[in-house]
Amino acid sequence: MADPKTFQMACPVPLTDTETVLLAHGGGGALMHKLIEEVFLPRFKNPWLAAQHDGAVLTVGNQRLAFTTDSYVVHPLFFPGGDIGHLAVNGTVNDLAMCGARPLYLSAGFILEEGLPMETLKRVVDSMREAAHTAGVDLVTGDTKVVDRGKGDGLFINTAGIGVIETPQTISPLSILPGDGILVSGDVGRHGIAIMAVREGLSFETAIESDTAPVAQAVLNLLTAGIRVHCLRDATRGGLASILVEIAQAAKRDLAIDEAAIPVREDVRGACEILGLDPLYVANEGCFAAFVAEADIPRALEVLRRDPRGSQASLIGHVAKENSGLVTLKGAIGVPRILDQLSGEQLPRIC
Amino acid sequence: MADPKTFQMACPVPLTDTETVLLAHGGGGALMHKLIEEVFLPRFKNPWLAAQHDGAVLTVGNQRLAFTTDSYVVHPLFFPGGDIGHLAVNGTVNDLAMCGARPLYLSAGFILEEGLPMETLKRVVDSMREAAHTAGVDLVTGDTKVVDRGKGDGLFINTAGIGVIETPQTISPLSILPGDGILVSGDVGRHGIAIMAVREGLSFETAIESDTAPVAQAVLNLLTAGIRVHCLRDATRGGLASILVEIAQAAKRDLAIDEAAIPVREDVRGACEILGLDPLYVANEGCFAAFVAEADIPRALEVLRRDPRGSQASLIGHVAKENSGLVTLKGAIGVPRILDQLSGEQLPRIC
Repeated sequence: MADPKTFQMACPVPLTDTETVLLAHGGGGALMHKLIEEVFLPRFKNPWLAAQHDGAVLTVGNQRLAFTTDSYVVHPLFFPGGDIGHLAVNGTVNDLAMCGARPLYLSAGFILEEGLPMETLKRVVDSMREAAHTAGVDLVTGDTKVVDRGKGDGLFINTAGIGVIETPQTISPLSILPGDGILVSGDVGRHGIAIMAVREGLSFETAIESDTAPVAQAVLNLLTAGIRVHCLRDATRGGLASILVEIAQAAKRDLAIDEAAIPVREDVRGACEILGLDPLYVANEGCFAAFVAEADIPRALEVLRRDPRGSQASLIGHVAKENSGLVTLKGAIGVPRILDQLSGEQLPRIC
Repeated sequence: MADPKTFQMACPVPLTDTETVLLAHGGGGALMHKLIEEVFLPRFKNPWLAAQHDGAVLTVGNQRLAFTTDSYVVHPLFFPGGDIGHLAVNGTVNDLAMCGARPLYLSAGFILEEGLPMETLKRVVDSMREAAHTAGVDLVTGDTKVVDRGKGDGLFINTAGIGVIETPQTISPLSILPGDGILVSGDVGRHGIAIMAVREGLSFETAIESDTAPVAQAVLNLLTAGIRVHCLRDATRGGLASILVEIAQAAKRDLAIDEAAIPVREDVRGACEILGLDPLYVANEGCFAAFVAEADIPRALEVLRRDPRGSQASLIGHVAKENSGLVTLKGAIGVPRILDQLSGEQLPRIC
């Protein structure tokens, strides 16, 4: 029998108590959650952060608002299907949508590295304008900082966003109920593979483009159709698997997922095999999971599929009766496995 | 006579049409304004950005809100009187205050460089907690990204903020009127000198500490006292001189400033002489200019001086009748000079 200590040392799970920041602390997986739980949450104790949602739901006067932020450090800046400018707008628009909000206003903070070609900046800002127009939001306030050469990486962008919540529903992991259907709005894995392909210089038979897109309209369609939406989350860093685990743990409810029902494009599946990646852990930028009341499942699917980007929307599982917070994936050959959060870093600087 | 072309080439004014981003594009001076006017404003055309205020004033439902953002890239992270965490909270709180808003909620986006000591991060987050508590705001949503070693500089922070505007006054350069008094809330130049001293390893007889502090309460005191406040601006990058020029140009009104009335601490003035800096162009992080109706000047000064940090609050000039957008500084020996925006970069990465 292996010595337990040796076994632990040899285990590929990353160290969780590190004295310095690792790339994996930004990966959307277990180490990032540890950082949030041990560094940020104890210092900023308040009900909004404790909710660990994609954004904060605030009441100002008699208005319910959603407020969220994300920084974008994707490398390379340009990739098939989009660029850092598209991501910076769509990512924040989508986080607002995940709160059930209609996105209204964005801020943009640019950190430029000395020597960045002005043409690159203009191209990115053009993309932001285009993405803001498509998503129906205005970029109303901004800031520009410049750091010396070698102290940045061309261009980082932060956006924050404000949206207005017009539905009385409380969209949160705590609202999910046994029997709820778990839907995805489209096929998974395209964004991460698009980035990896350009980084690694790979080309596939068909071009795999990022799915970066605003999903707010699809969410508002669900809400205005009267679908009882209990929880929403976009499957960005850490992929679909990680956000399902996040929700199961926050809700303390088990989720039963049918792997065969998860839409993955054939070319994405093939690329994942070549690269040794699991598509369920690969980041998306235009795909979300919706937890809806059992009776509303067929209508929710219909509404999602009516969206121009929703043809692949699928029912992938349901909320189980058990409350141990586990996600069980029934594989193609019928053997169930327990999904875990991404441990370590699968694809650094994906967004 | 010098050949005009040669003369132009030898002129110390920086090139304004550059093909790459320069440090001066982040300096709060002429090049930064050119970047904003030529790259950002034409692409994001909307009334909020066109106002070129410290934040956007939005109406959501029946609520007037202020929304603003800033990224912080100060080097070094820790300096006498504060650190990047204090700046990240106070800077955004102060930008909300400059819109006449009561600051309520902040977001925080962290860009960490792989290898950053965890203790450094914790120390900065502790400062943010302390500063948020002092300013009476909650940090309600956040994001963490990690970039590979050599692609960042330890730690960059972006904060965005939301505040509620409870006054009917429109605080904007366009609201200033001839005869308005121009007040500063305290002495100028301390933040920039504190940073320079630690960068250059200088020590002075007395410790010069950054003035980083929230100014929202001082602004709310003016507003609730019924002072007719026409415009507010905090004298950050580019210093007091640059923001006066900004306001004069935006308002198309002349400003007459009395240099002798501007409070500058003796040790700051001495340090500026040693370093070859003009204190009027040195950044502050807890000092603002207020334009108030002529009849309200004495009361406004009284209110500002009642603030624990307001003992140096002073009347430094007034809005003149002319409308050419010039700022005239009457020097100590009585000779007037026209103030210009900072050209080039005086102190990079000051905030």
